[in-house]
Amino acid sequence: MGPVREIPLKIFGNKPVIRIRDINSVVNNYKIFKDKAKKTNSTCAAVLKGDVHGLIMKDVAPLLYKEGARDFFIEELFEGIELRNILPYKDVSIYALGGLLRGEEDYFFDNDITPCVNSIDQLIRWNTYCSINNKRDVLIHLDSHMNRLGLLDDSVNYLSENFESLTSNLNVVAYLSHFFDIKGDDHSNCNMQLNILKKYLKILPVRKVSMACTDSVILLDNSSVNFDIVRIGIGITGGAPSKNKPVSKNAKHTMEIYARYSQIKTVKKGDTIGYGGAYTTLKDTKIALVHIGYKDGYMRVLSGLDEKYGAYMNIAGYRADVIGKISLGATVIDVTDIPSEVLNDNFYAEVVGPNVDIKDLADIVGCYEILVSLGRPNKKFKDFTMDEFKELSY
Amino acid sequence: MGPVREIPLKIFGNKPVIRIRDINSVVNNYKIFKDKAKKTNSTCAAVLKGDVHGLIMKDVAPLLYKEGARDFFIEELFEGIELRNILPYKDVSIYALGGLLRGEEDYFFDNDITPCVNSIDQLIRWNTYCSINNKRDVLIHLDSHMNRLGLLDDSVNYLSENFESLTSNLNVVAYLSHFFDIKGDDHSNCNMQLNILKKYLKILPVRKVSMACTDSVILLDNSSVNFDIVRIGIGITGGAPSKNKPVSKNAKHTMEIYARYSQIKTVKKGDTIGYGGAYTTLKDTKIALVHIGYKDGYMRVLSGLDEKYGAYMNIAGYRADVIGKISLGATVIDVTDIPSEVLNDNFYAEVVGPNVDIKDLADIVGCYEILVSLGRPNKKFKDFTMDEFKELSY
Repeated sequence: MGPVREIPLKIFGNKPVIRIRDINSVVNNYKIFKDKAKKTNSTCAAVLKGDVHGLIMKDVAPLLYKEGARDFFIEELFEGIELRNILPYKDVSIYALGGLLRGEEDYFFDNDITPCVNSIDQLIRWNTYCSINNKRDVLIHLDSHMNRLGLLDDSVNYLSENFESLTSNLNVVAYLSHFFDIKGDDHSNCNMQLNILKKYLKILPVRKVSMACTDSVILLDNSSVNFDIVRIGIGITGGAPSKNKPVSKNAKHTMEIYARYSQIKTVKKGDTIGYGGAYTTLKDTKIALVHIGYKDGYMRVLSGLDEKYGAYMNIAGYRADVIGKISLGATVIDVTDIPSEVLNDNFYAEVVGPNVDIKDLADIVGCYEILVSLGRPNKKFKDFTMDEFKELSY
Repeated sequence: MGPVREIPLKIFGNKPVIRIRDINSVVNNYKIFKDKAKKTNSTCAAVLKGDVHGLIMKDVAPLLYKEGARDFFIEELFEGIELRNILPYKDVSIYALGGLLRGEEDYFFDNDITPCVNSIDQLIRWNTYCSINNKRDVLIHLDSHMNRLGLLDDSVNYLSENFESLTSNLNVVAYLSHFFDIKGDDHSNCNMQLNILKKYLKILPVRKVSMACTDSVILLDNSSVNFDIVRIGIGITGGAPSKNKPVSKNAKHTMEIYARYSQIKTVKKGDTIGYGGAYTTLKDTKIALVHIGYKDGYMRVLSGLDEKYGAYMNIAGYRADVIGKISLGATVIDVTDIPSEVLNDNFYAEVVGPNVDIKDLADIVGCYEILVSLGRPNKKFKDFTMDEFKELSY
């Protein structure tokens, strides 16, 4: 069990949810990966896409820079522009994983963002653009049969045969690739992908190589997957493949969410809760209404139904299960086992935090969609960094 | 099939997704409900919670006011404050469904927002507050065994026995309640709830009554569910219980989303697509990468997997199925049957719009979570009203 945070009533104002972002722990998580990367002489790059999964780039990026990070990946061009404004330094490299869309060339060039091209067409456009303008960097995404981003078999052959002309005005910094199946204990797909990547690399001029990181750091031998550049995304937020496989026992999750609850009442045994009557009470059940719902990113898939357990919350150290379907803006929890005086003395439920591991929620959802979903901008939330929160509440 | 919108490249700038909100159709949908309500002499109230499910209150509310709407429901206090600033008129009533949380009394009073109290405790607090200040309105939520918001059995009895003293400084405008199981063809739960509500009303002083609306308008006899105040929420966005049960053939959906695609390539038969290898191609498959993903509210549950069909998109009139798991910022679609010249001449996929009914997506997700999810603020999206879009593109 983690610490139970006391949240003074005044902190809420007229907003029913508070969100605390632990930026210092983001940096701490980055250090864990940096140390792992050091052992194989790999650069540790930070992937900041999705506003660092909701932890907000403008707060995170400067601290990572201070910590020595110089290589940053984002997905979309607009994220790159934002990051370039945050870190306008010559020694900072910004790479856009989404590739180079038609018409984006000027933006990439003017903001000194490097595209990770994922097709021959994108490579040709960037090379042509840079012939008229100035030589620039490029990364090339090789698709080792994830069959999503990057150059696949035939295109890799084409690149191999025409490398000189295709990159005449470019500096090819590195090749990228990505694992697609690394959660389980069966690593045959990973090994298959590593073999494909090696085949690709054999016919291409030597450059740096970068594979996807977080999961491989835990499940595979680092020396076989770290290559030259390690890319950490969900890992710097404390994310891991599942609760049972943390990146390290020192890796911390970095977002806490507390929502107000109201209206304690008792529902009779055998009655149903909420939409669709999808949960039937097994006993006389004391319930509370928590003011967070799926419009706030507390996804309906977390609902507790007859045929499936859902998420849970925590009030002053007591666990409270989500029961019934989650509504637009509210969620019902079972508070039967929480003493009345505890319920009356508190007015918030911990939705994610020291006692409600976001990895548990991610395991229910099936991926870290829940983190970005809870991390999106929300007028209903009052936002604090952990430092701001501690200053206010003590 | 609906119209295929031509979207000029210049419209995107450096953002890969455009979102068009059809505010006029929101008003049109409101009129449909208003006419239905008129037949039973019911007031037609608009529920604007969740920023009108992403259609943005500041644009929608003034047009509804112009159309005659005077009664508005929101969920949270902060939404009420926003709405009061948009419609600062004496004849506008704003009701907060979430109830009156401890410490919110001043905000409710100062912004002339009426709480829909959902516990005796909330009623006592508001009554006490108004005894010191001034008499004010209140709505009382009666829980007809949805077992979510409102006063349940014992509390209704308590209210009945102490109505005078509990409401001595209040004007009780109406009682509210809500159906929980109205999607199917079996209406036994609805009838059970109507019976409970009637039992409640029998022991309470006569006031106006309001039940939840959209679904009941379609499935039940209006005269038995409209009561005095009809509350339309998802209905004004064009939402309905399912695609097969539209509110009316004139009801229109009100949000369109177009995302850029890139990188056409062919994956061999029997290969897998994306994370987890969760989709296996049944033929040599031409794919495109669409630049929208779950961090944008295009929820992972829409993925097309081996064991389940997913969502689909549309390019220039051609359907393109989502295949594989949806990624953070990107989605793979099957474009095998779309001629190359069509793919090359276009650069966006319709994600939601005239050819991709949001009701289809809602049916996959199980509820309108998808609409609020796509409707949330997003720096990756370029936002237009339909009028703005038409002006720009012609």
